[in-house]
Amino acid sequence: MKQNRRNFIKTSGLLGGAVLTPGILTNSFAKNINIIGDNKKMKLTFKPYTLELKHVFTIATSSRSTTPVMLTQIEYDGIIGYGEASMPPYLGESHDTAAKFLSKVDLSQFNDPFKMEEILDYVDSIEDKNTAAKAAVDIALHDLVGKIIGQPWYKVWGFDKTKTPKTSFTIGIDTPKVVKEKVLEAAPYHILKAKLGRDTDKQMIETIRSVTDKPIVVDVNQGWTDKHFALDMINWLDEKGVKLVEQPMPKTQIDDMAWLTENSPLPTFADEALQRIPDVIKAHGVYSGINIKLMKCTGLREAHKMLNLAKSLDMQVMLGCMTATSCSISAMSQLAPEAEWADLDGNLLIGNDPFEGTLIVDGKVTLTDAPGIGLTKVRAY
Amino acid sequence: MKQNRRNFIKTSGLLGGAVLTPGILTNSFAKNINIIGDNKKMKLTFKPYTLELKHVFTIATSSRSTTPVMLTQIEYDGIIGYGEASMPPYLGESHDTAAKFLSKVDLSQFNDPFKMEEILDYVDSIEDKNTAAKAAVDIALHDLVGKIIGQPWYKVWGFDKTKTPKTSFTIGIDTPKVVKEKVLEAAPYHILKAKLGRDTDKQMIETIRSVTDKPIVVDVNQGWTDKHFALDMINWLDEKGVKLVEQPMPKTQIDDMAWLTENSPLPTFADEALQRIPDVIKAHGVYSGINIKLMKCTGLREAHKMLNLAKSLDMQVMLGCMTATSCSISAMSQLAPEAEWADLDGNLLIGNDPFEGTLIVDGKVTLTDAPGIGLTKVRAY
Repeated sequence: MKQNRRNFIKTSGLLGGAVLTPGILTNSFAKNINIIGDNKKMKLTFKPYTLELKHVFTIATSSRSTTPVMLTQIEYDGIIGYGEASMPPYLGESHDTAAKFLSKVDLSQFNDPFKMEEILDYVDSIEDKNTAAKAAVDIALHDLVGKIIGQPWYKVWGFDKTKTPKTSFTIGIDTPKVVKEKVLEAAPYHILKAKLGRDTDKQMIETIRSVTDKPIVVDVNQGWTDKHFALDMINWLDEKGVKLVEQPMPKTQIDDMAWLTENSPLPTFADEALQRIPDVIKAHGVYSGINIKLMKCTGLREAHKMLNLAKSLDMQVMLGCMTATSCSISAMSQLAPEAEWADLDGNLLIGNDPFEGTLIVDGKVTLTDAPGIGLTKVRAY
Repeated sequence: MKQNRRNFIKTSGLLGGAVLTPGILTNSFAKNINIIGDNKKMKLTFKPYTLELKHVFTIATSSRSTTPVMLTQIEYDGIIGYGEASMPPYLGESHDTAAKFLSKVDLSQFNDPFKMEEILDYVDSIEDKNTAAKAAVDIALHDLVGKIIGQPWYKVWGFDKTKTPKTSFTIGIDTPKVVKEKVLEAAPYHILKAKLGRDTDKQMIETIRSVTDKPIVVDVNQGWTDKHFALDMINWLDEKGVKLVEQPMPKTQIDDMAWLTENSPLPTFADEALQRIPDVIKAHGVYSGINIKLMKCTGLREAHKMLNLAKSLDMQVMLGCMTATSCSISAMSQLAPEAEWADLDGNLLIGNDPFEGTLIVDGKVTLTDAPGIGLTKVRAY
């Protein structure tokens, strides 16, 4: 009530610099204030959207040509913050689950978007899982608050945007002919990410090496189950100019994984083994680094804490993504100046991006100076 | 150069919304821009100041009636950020060491105060130790950037200022008569902190309990060297309504301390054992919580990370302080909504505070809404 009154005074301009004594309010005047106060509440809306992938996307377990996303908006005081849940099917969320979850989110109980800890604790407490839907609220709230502040988050967080890493560009598992074509298409990118974890791993790397000597990072998606085999493979990959290995072994083989990391010439990164803050603690001593993804960790607030936590534990950080619009990518890229590795190519893989934001310029993650998450809406949805 | 040009356009108002083509600049015009650009650099100044304590202050090892501090300012674009180094003699810094350190800090090489990570990494790299002098730069920079953003840091960090804890008020070691008087003087405060670690510990607590049943927290300052004796004392303190025990044993007795924490009915807090981020990792599994102090951890940037790190490790957080002006206290209190315990009475103990900021209202840490660290200068120095 006090808050609403103050906001009313600030925005109405009726009272100038005068001090308002609550006692002088008539009932009808107070009623007006309440109505205006109500307009200052946050309003969350959401809309299903389907991303069209430029190429069929293949990982160790499946192929697909679209990705369902949920686009969100939080409106407050005439300002709109944009958010997104990207939901590749193997993670268990969908248009239906996200709509069901987001319908339960009642932001009208909060009249101050700055109370991000309280608001996002509430969103997290509504139901377990639904991490992408939660991220869609978190991202929109960050965009909103950053716009109110008038600054992009990378600045508020004290980062230097010239220090962003180059992004890797993913080459899916395919025939040697197609892999070669994809590597040539990836000419603008300076680091390639190869998906491994099948019996064609060496062939895949040799095919890439037959056309380029660019640095390669590999994602094994838990594909190797024997630690000695895994170490032999990593030693071989090291000789081929590979720079790091993501999730080489099943996430449940913790002791094997710790042994592998201790003996590996290349840094190892937790991916499937890692979702949220407690997983970073568990990954310490088991992996050399972590791959943070907004859709798995519930958004920027937790991602920022995970980044600082990993640094405190002397672990490296990779920022990952799903196929997604520029909304999620620009949001995550706000953290990029402090990350050693970026795998932020998700928006480059789609044909119907409704936003423009962070760009890849000469392979490097390149942030805009627009406030919030640095986004512009360029297409109706 | 690009930055300077943009700032000039923004502040001069000469060019309105016109797009400036670099090629049209004449040399003399460009020269003016450089001069104006130079004015946009950060300028650090500092001044020694001596706090007069209202009462002689006694801890386990010494007594004193003044505390030397160094007051700092960072000026940028006509905005001033205030900072402070508080240097109780037992920590090894002084007016001389701080002046020597701060003379080496050259902020004129940075033209963007938002690059806080880079700037504070540079300050930290100049020399080892000097943590209070480093904090004096960090606090002034936070005040400056918060003022540019137009928001207090607790809001930027997403906290709810209604959630601050009550502060404890320290009762020094003294005769029963003086202790009783001090407890009565502490009427406005709802939690008392007793300094223990001498052979009069039980008498001290019984004296306090003879006049009040307020919750007590105790700071042993490493005073107990036998773990079984320490556990017996803690069990006794628990019966007397004590809520937590700070640094019961010497910081070097790590195994004893871990055993004590495991068996203690009260949470244990690391104080002397804790300075910066790596110490939080070391304290995990050894203590239940940490006492963060700006003058030991180099300032708000690291304190904020330590708070998040402790929460990630399921450890409690106490915010502590030295005797200091409202500058340091208001700065630290920006983190208070997320801390379980506050020991922010340092400015209440001095008679010549040049600032007003965070207040203690009915015992509770009460933040202002002023931007930056929430401070107003009320007295020349």
